[in-house]
Amino acid sequence: MSKKYVLALDLGGTNSVLGIVDREGKVLATSSFKTQAYPVLEDYVSTCASEAEKLISTYGCEHEIHAFGIGAPDVNYWNRTIENATNLPWKGVVPLTDLLEQKMHLPVRITNDAKAAALGEMLFGAAKGMKDFMMITLGTGVGSGIVVNGKLVYGKNSFAGELGHSTIRPENGRACPCGRKGCLEAYCSATGVARTAVEFLEKDDAPSLLRSMAVDEITSKDVYEAAVKGDRIANEVFRFTGKLLGESLANFATFSDPEAFILFGGLTKAGDLLMNPLKETYDKEVFENYRGTARILVSALKDAEAAILGAAALAWLDASGS
Amino acid sequence: MSKKYVLALDLGGTNSVLGIVDREGKVLATSSFKTQAYPVLEDYVSTCASEAEKLISTYGCEHEIHAFGIGAPDVNYWNRTIENATNLPWKGVVPLTDLLEQKMHLPVRITNDAKAAALGEMLFGAAKGMKDFMMITLGTGVGSGIVVNGKLVYGKNSFAGELGHSTIRPENGRACPCGRKGCLEAYCSATGVARTAVEFLEKDDAPSLLRSMAVDEITSKDVYEAAVKGDRIANEVFRFTGKLLGESLANFATFSDPEAFILFGGLTKAGDLLMNPLKETYDKEVFENYRGTARILVSALKDAEAAILGAAALAWLDASGS
Repeated sequence: MSKKYVLALDLGGTNSVLGIVDREGKVLATSSFKTQAYPVLEDYVSTCASEAEKLISTYGCEHEIHAFGIGAPDVNYWNRTIENATNLPWKGVVPLTDLLEQKMHLPVRITNDAKAAALGEMLFGAAKGMKDFMMITLGTGVGSGIVVNGKLVYGKNSFAGELGHSTIRPENGRACPCGRKGCLEAYCSATGVARTAVEFLEKDDAPSLLRSMAVDEITSKDVYEAAVKGDRIANEVFRFTGKLLGESLANFATFSDPEAFILFGGLTKAGDLLMNPLKETYDKEVFENYRGTARILVSALKDAEAAILGAAALAWLDASGS
Repeated sequence: MSKKYVLALDLGGTNSVLGIVDREGKVLATSSFKTQAYPVLEDYVSTCASEAEKLISTYGCEHEIHAFGIGAPDVNYWNRTIENATNLPWKGVVPLTDLLEQKMHLPVRITNDAKAAALGEMLFGAAKGMKDFMMITLGTGVGSGIVVNGKLVYGKNSFAGELGHSTIRPENGRACPCGRKGCLEAYCSATGVARTAVEFLEKDDAPSLLRSMAVDEITSKDVYEAAVKGDRIANEVFRFTGKLLGESLANFATFSDPEAFILFGGLTKAGDLLMNPLKETYDKEVFENYRGTARILVSALKDAEAAILGAAALAWLDASGS
């Protein structure tokens, strides 16, 4: 364990971002390329390897790379593969990890992006020193990574931690893109906030800055901007969202008695508009054993670096025995 | 690890049951005494030790005891103590484990009863060979023990796995003895079944065998007996209970992607009356990633032995390094 750096890859549907990261979570250099430009997996692997070599040689750290960590969607951690990804160019079971290991002669580790984010917070961010916490990512969808006794929870088929698809409104719940109803993601994602705004505008006659927009163009950012200007309906949207998220976290506590919930993603930009009703509801709703025990924190990592740091944390933690 | 037996103690509010158990989960001998007869902890410890010695000498296995496992309510696993138990004679923080170790010169391990039950199923019962499953105990209350990658989930303060107090009806939920509303326990426990029966009898005019009873005397067993005689309302009570339990398990799957749910306790005696609507609802409601992957099983241990076997499993598993 004497090497100084890891390689990290944030493999997204649009962009792939490579980085070199040290033990303290400093991102020394990054490079990015378009994921969709490589419909053939082997071409992607070659590009990835050559981009990594360029970064390494530019930085002059040829013999200092400990391992290579990847955060990606639809990962089967147990099989070390990407499986049936809907937003990536490669179909079926994708042996990216094995191919990169053969090409680069480095230990390569892969996990799902929300799980990588949890490891990033544990090693470099708001969960430093914690062994039991839940990472909740509030973006277009709602993702999660659950850490129990210092380890990510993967489960039998590597699908653990789909808390965005836990049902929070079992009766008359809102339709979720997953085909089910009442999922957390249908309410407490960026799209959920926009949907709540449209619903609130329809059932309330009050004037609102949002009424000047076409309902199908309202975004969570628009709702936030209206809310900070004092718009009543926009404020109610965040109060509602925070309340549902607070109820949900109170429920999640019954699973693993976490030390903290770490929130990440666009919605957290709403700050107190979201966090105040969230914390208030959590404190009110949580089972007595958990009252006052878990902190509700926002990620301590920079947005632009969080995904790379998650992949880097995986490389430091999961390849430590290599 | 060459010793042949463990001692096991099922410490209940009324009775304490001691047993000698072998590696295969055979209960060789048991003895029991009244917990409440020993309001002074040291007296309980002495009785426990002398009863254990009697068992051991009767069975002639003096040098063959590997460790001593205890299943009890309100255990703090990290501290090896019982804390603020409401149904035990000793107040505050109870160092039973340390006292027994000093007295008996054996490694002593303690965990909560529902968690011990999970270990019992893993070592001797329906979860044999599994690494990811959830144990759900359906008794007067609803308890749970969650196993992830072969280990019990304890969480920061040892309160993980209070799934009975996850909220399954966030809107207009039924009051739970915990002071909150809409908890799983308020619906899917023995008392929950009785409450559902009373509700259904009130809102429905249909004749029912249960109408001959005083509403505050109806038990889940009465509902079961009426249901097997074809009573429509009693059948609807189990359908409703099974449906809510199926919804709940579908939600629980999003945490840890388990290989199985193991159900234990009085309510499981209802058999298909409960299990059919439960499985049907689970299959319908579960998030697509989990569809068809988890088995829903009933405990494979005899009721009378399950608690002792849980404590024995703890001794075999947790003290294996001693």
